[in-house]
Amino acid sequence: MVEKRNEFNAYVKFLEGEQEGDGPLKDVTVAVKDNIYIKGVETTAASRILRGFVPTYDATVVRKLRAAGAKIVAKTNMHEFAVGGTNTSSIFGPTRNPHDVERITGGSSGGSAAAVASGDVEVALGTDTRGSVRIPAALCGVFGFKPTFGRISRFGVIPLAWSMDHVGVLGRDVETIRKVYRTLKGFDSADPSTSVNVGLGEYKKEVESIGVIKELTEGTEVEEEFERFMDKLSRRYKVEKLEVPTVMEAVGIVDVFRAETAAYHSRYLPGREGDYFPDVLNAIKIGFNVPAHAYVNALRYRTRITQEFLKVFSEVDILTCPTVTIRPPKISDVLGREGEFRLPLTRNTVPFNVFSTPAISVPIGKFVGAQFIAPMGHDEELLDFVKGLGVSAFYTK
Amino acid sequence: MVEKRNEFNAYVKFLEGEQEGDGPLKDVTVAVKDNIYIKGVETTAASRILRGFVPTYDATVVRKLRAAGAKIVAKTNMHEFAVGGTNTSSIFGPTRNPHDVERITGGSSGGSAAAVASGDVEVALGTDTRGSVRIPAALCGVFGFKPTFGRISRFGVIPLAWSMDHVGVLGRDVETIRKVYRTLKGFDSADPSTSVNVGLGEYKKEVESIGVIKELTEGTEVEEEFERFMDKLSRRYKVEKLEVPTVMEAVGIVDVFRAETAAYHSRYLPGREGDYFPDVLNAIKIGFNVPAHAYVNALRYRTRITQEFLKVFSEVDILTCPTVTIRPPKISDVLGREGEFRLPLTRNTVPFNVFSTPAISVPIGKFVGAQFIAPMGHDEELLDFVKGLGVSAFYTK
Repeated sequence: MVEKRNEFNAYVKFLEGEQEGDGPLKDVTVAVKDNIYIKGVETTAASRILRGFVPTYDATVVRKLRAAGAKIVAKTNMHEFAVGGTNTSSIFGPTRNPHDVERITGGSSGGSAAAVASGDVEVALGTDTRGSVRIPAALCGVFGFKPTFGRISRFGVIPLAWSMDHVGVLGRDVETIRKVYRTLKGFDSADPSTSVNVGLGEYKKEVESIGVIKELTEGTEVEEEFERFMDKLSRRYKVEKLEVPTVMEAVGIVDVFRAETAAYHSRYLPGREGDYFPDVLNAIKIGFNVPAHAYVNALRYRTRITQEFLKVFSEVDILTCPTVTIRPPKISDVLGREGEFRLPLTRNTVPFNVFSTPAISVPIGKFVGAQFIAPMGHDEELLDFVKGLGVSAFYTK
Repeated sequence: MVEKRNEFNAYVKFLEGEQEGDGPLKDVTVAVKDNIYIKGVETTAASRILRGFVPTYDATVVRKLRAAGAKIVAKTNMHEFAVGGTNTSSIFGPTRNPHDVERITGGSSGGSAAAVASGDVEVALGTDTRGSVRIPAALCGVFGFKPTFGRISRFGVIPLAWSMDHVGVLGRDVETIRKVYRTLKGFDSADPSTSVNVGLGEYKKEVESIGVIKELTEGTEVEEEFERFMDKLSRRYKVEKLEVPTVMEAVGIVDVFRAETAAYHSRYLPGREGDYFPDVLNAIKIGFNVPAHAYVNALRYRTRITQEFLKVFSEVDILTCPTVTIRPPKISDVLGREGEFRLPLTRNTVPFNVFSTPAISVPIGKFVGAQFIAPMGHDEELLDFVKGLGVSAFYTK
């Protein structure tokens, strides 16, 4: 990124991009979402609440990026506190889709998606709790990868819902995403959630069959485009349509996990309601009404449906569906109606936060992504498979 | 157990003790607490609620005991649903202390403790959420061992608070307890909590120093007896008194985890209040008043104080304190006043359920135990250390 242009409002701050390490990411340009700590750099999560907050240390992912030789050139715009999929509620204003500036990027890592889709940077870090990496990747025509839960440390990342939060990577080619993933992954004593996968190796096998999830495909606005893409794949893979009812059960329980969001925001609420965007405040407030026993039962139910869901991988090697059910709406149609877009934007991505499985959005159009899902621990296999598809991202430079 | 006597009301049912396997527990007689499933045998958790409930499968621990050649000869009495430390609230009536039938055994695995202390069986299984294995072991003069959280499957065990529930072993000698522990431990796909320790090996080092936890020792009713015991140990080990403030922080947050109890009992409440003992009902009801965000914050706080607590093991190899702050009161003094005994009975044991560390109660008198605590994964080291003490249990046969 040579010029410091910000025509899509993707950036909230430009950085020097000083190079420290000399590793596998040497000279790779990276933008980092504004909910990830960079020492000495104001980190607001696009919220009035955090205005003036300057972390005194780097997030583990930032430290690792630097040590591997990456150049961190900017912090990216986002939906306030990552609580929204439109990227329009930000103290820095909405981000604009590089392929059509009147449309949203999707979110909440919309600035990261715009940074990649504009061609400014090779990769960008985002966070993904209900789909916040994959949604903007799909709506901006780039790749967006969320690994297995616990693979990448969230130390120094502002939480949204700790049992579903992931750091993810957006990029324009799979190999660079893989290099970043390999740099970032691993146990971090500062983030106990990384220990859940210490015993989980990297599994790999050749992908032969793909299951299309009926519930998340039929009736979507992008169904036709998605089906054309799958038709091409069916020449190389065994493709079959499957009913996977657990994905809708996951969608059904996900709002219970707003309690985790409320737990974090209880330090600001009640008292600072007026400092939040209304759509964000509404979503957080849902979490304050959850009784703990309902939350505990949802955790147990989640374990059960996850086990049930994983059985589908005895029938097919990999699952797929459109990443998002709609194309990016116009910013003017979204403002003040953000809540109405929550379900259409997140329905297809959130089940795989509930289940902890790796998932990636692959661009099949400037505004449309196909999502592929593998079982926990099969991250590298998923990346191999996607690389083999030979798909190119859409970016404007 | 030849005669089917039940003078201490330790048993709720006698079994045939058929032998199936031919392994390391060949001919070992075992009694099993009545909240652990045995296929085809009524399992009530000493509650009217479960009267007539007959499991259609064995708990994993029962299956493993059988495969190792053990003889399961009885199901033991307990405090209703394990929600209490006195073992007086049971549809089968209070258990009686074999060393003084007017006194309580402590609980909630009081029947298991009486079964061992009476000499009827070599070992007994109990469950331990706030101390329910260690407390009755201490008050009945036998050993009671709770391993690292996640070491032993709880599949087929009626839950009390899933994040703190453990299966534990009561016995009259350390070597038999060790054999049972080795038989029972290990990953069980039917209990996801066993996976948290898949990556955790068995650590071992020679114990040289012992830290006496001041907060849990000073001012207790058994302090003098405990100090005499420690004086003897100080000839062989470096013994020092330590302030460990995190143990009291653990005691302070533990009632938040009543929410997990409420989650389980929400299937019976509201509607069947009258079927519970009043003290048990009161304890469960606390859990229904916890908001989920407070529970989530308590989970995070718990992680923090656990990390802080573990630092003490850089100063000493093992920690100790009296297992219980009091001697067993008379049954007649407890009836109707069970709630008043909750804190004196559980205060010294519950921190190590909050922290997930292994802990064992060692008999130093007929009614008094010394508790020893090691870091997670040091279970075998803890058993080695206790074996080296050369302490004998008190049993009446």
